[in-house]
Amino acid sequence: MPAHPSSTLRTARTPGSSTPKPGSQSALRERNQQRIVEALLASAPLTQAEISRQTGLSRATVSNIVGAMNERRLVITEPTTSSGRRALSVRLNESGAVAAGIDIGRRHVRVVLASLGHRILQEESILLPLGHSAADGMDAAASLLDRLLRRQGVDRSAVLGAGVGIPGPIDRRTGTVVQGAILPEWVGINMREDLADRLGVPVYVDNDANLGALAEVTWGPHGGSENLIFVKVASGIGAGLIINGSLYYGNVGITGEIGHATIFDQGLICRCGNRGCLETIASTSIMIELLSRGSSGTISTSDILSRAAGKDPATLRVIDDAGAAVGRAAANLANTLNPELIIIGGSLTALGDIFLDPIRRGLLRHAVPLVGETSTVMMSSLGDRAEALGAAALVLQAQGAAAP
Amino acid sequence: MPAHPSSTLRTARTPGSSTPKPGSQSALRERNQQRIVEALLASAPLTQAEISRQTGLSRATVSNIVGAMNERRLVITEPTTSSGRRALSVRLNESGAVAAGIDIGRRHVRVVLASLGHRILQEESILLPLGHSAADGMDAAASLLDRLLRRQGVDRSAVLGAGVGIPGPIDRRTGTVVQGAILPEWVGINMREDLADRLGVPVYVDNDANLGALAEVTWGPHGGSENLIFVKVASGIGAGLIINGSLYYGNVGITGEIGHATIFDQGLICRCGNRGCLETIASTSIMIELLSRGSSGTISTSDILSRAAGKDPATLRVIDDAGAAVGRAAANLANTLNPELIIIGGSLTALGDIFLDPIRRGLLRHAVPLVGETSTVMMSSLGDRAEALGAAALVLQAQGAAAP
Repeated sequence: MPAHPSSTLRTARTPGSSTPKPGSQSALRERNQQRIVEALLASAPLTQAEISRQTGLSRATVSNIVGAMNERRLVITEPTTSSGRRALSVRLNESGAVAAGIDIGRRHVRVVLASLGHRILQEESILLPLGHSAADGMDAAASLLDRLLRRQGVDRSAVLGAGVGIPGPIDRRTGTVVQGAILPEWVGINMREDLADRLGVPVYVDNDANLGALAEVTWGPHGGSENLIFVKVASGIGAGLIINGSLYYGNVGITGEIGHATIFDQGLICRCGNRGCLETIASTSIMIELLSRGSSGTISTSDILSRAAGKDPATLRVIDDAGAAVGRAAANLANTLNPELIIIGGSLTALGDIFLDPIRRGLLRHAVPLVGETSTVMMSSLGDRAEALGAAALVLQAQGAAAP
Repeated sequence: MPAHPSSTLRTARTPGSSTPKPGSQSALRERNQQRIVEALLASAPLTQAEISRQTGLSRATVSNIVGAMNERRLVITEPTTSSGRRALSVRLNESGAVAAGIDIGRRHVRVVLASLGHRILQEESILLPLGHSAADGMDAAASLLDRLLRRQGVDRSAVLGAGVGIPGPIDRRTGTVVQGAILPEWVGINMREDLADRLGVPVYVDNDANLGALAEVTWGPHGGSENLIFVKVASGIGAGLIINGSLYYGNVGITGEIGHATIFDQGLICRCGNRGCLETIASTSIMIELLSRGSSGTISTSDILSRAAGKDPATLRVIDDAGAAVGRAAANLANTLNPELIIIGGSLTALGDIFLDPIRRGLLRHAVPLVGETSTVMMSSLGDRAEALGAAALVLQAQGAAAP
């Protein structure tokens, strides 16, 4: 799935969680490799001399890094001639090395395999039992990854890394899931280490809404957008922030937590420990709870979608109220960050205007007028693939292949 | 007034509003001059050869730019010898060229003159009548600037530029003050052009809260802070955002407008056109209105300060309620941006803990626990000088002298 042709090449300014210290030799080498990958993404094949000219790197550095990339099967090199001289032609190896993107939700695991050139090679999603343990989720992710690798015919040693999206805040200082996660079983677990042990590849853990935002600028139609907010509305509500072209992480990594803005002081107790948070009035969990009252069983998110399509009044009212609340939260975000684009993702995107209209109304009602008028709100076109695609993008970004 | 010694040299990534197009020849030249100024700020005097080594710029480029800076009296050059050869020693001219910082408020104009090396050379503030016209305010600023220049013994041609802070949102696409400004008389006025005409120097216009934030990382003790929020509580309430080390402007320049978050749906009408905004319950204007009810005259902000010192119960209650509301808004900001530091500025900083305690309480009550625990809240140490100092910093930043 190629990205939008008009999207511009973007330098990876946030190379994920297991980055070498800036200024170190390995950081310098990583940055130089990123420049080489960018040059090869922009036009390939290139001779080593051409790479040197385009990147400003010395011939020795280029030859050194290309050699190492060749050993790791990241590039394919072929002897050629240039101006009558012997030269080495270099291009990215589209099938030799892959990035894995893993999205673990409350009820599913999705894995994608992507090439350095941003082709999706394999993709599959499986259901998990509600309340599965962290170990079960990680095991399921590992075996699904293995299955996709076998299907693709590549070895695990060819995996550059695995990006992993979790519906909960991550303390980036440690890679640990913190209080407030949709999956209470996961709180306190060091995802980065546990998954790296299981998968045997470098692991980049991030919050699911962050990955949705990264997916929009990497695989979605918004590659040129410098300031974009991805608002995920599902069992939880959170936002991923693209600021000045990069994912923004703040001090310890917990950003865009709009689901925990207090709406009603005396509202329901929230899993974050506070009270009356947006999540207690506009998440799909609370919509399901509201619409299941008085009936024998519990409805599902897909029931909400089908009842809305059938114009069930109670369902439409619940969606409208939730949308207005999300729109108000979007207004606060927009008043703070003044983004070009606000993209709504999560499990209700199929509702289209039924959900988008009250969100837009809430935004215009509560934003500073000029901010409301200059912010565009739309549904994500990536649907439930956004998080896994963003997770793969995290790995590609660390290789310098941030956006094709 | 020197900045904190531990503050690190910071590259100007946002050189203000009248910046040449990135990628253009003049942008390249400006960036190169910034690198030279940074080198001279770090250690001076330097020979041109030393500048060339430290910046990576060619000797021809260095000689060219140093020559031009010398003509503009930005540097002082002296013949010297280095390794037995004739050389040119270069240092910044501490008195030759100055940056002006102008802060225009509802009732005052303050002007500062600063050297390239961040010494404050002159500073003065005068009162203006309430409801003064934009033209009056600009005239007052221009004549105060002239007075300070005369006192300093420098000509207006030695002014590198004037930064100007306005208590209202600025549309950066045009330099125009937009709806929602504390000074309704200013709405629609193109400050950048009007002031540049009056002063005859390049003008950089910005929102006052943005300049407070810039002042904190430039002149305050927080030079090393990458993620800092400056919350100004005065007649209006707004925030300036330092994100990844730079002032953040978003799409059209209207950021940090937390004063316009809806708190009560059925609250008072706000000057932004919405209803029940934070400003209608926690600004000094509303505190004055609340405390003046039933008395014959209208009290002032300094009355609030003195009555609080005298432990007047009504005053303490109004301050406590306002602080809790500001703390809640700070919690929403912190949940979104996860800053290291939240600095409270504006006209109530002298209250100290009387105002800070309810703000901290509101923050901890409404923030995601880990976010609340890892955000430090404190009063600005710059007081009512913050905006003018930030305005001067905007000019110095454009010269490459972002932080000493």
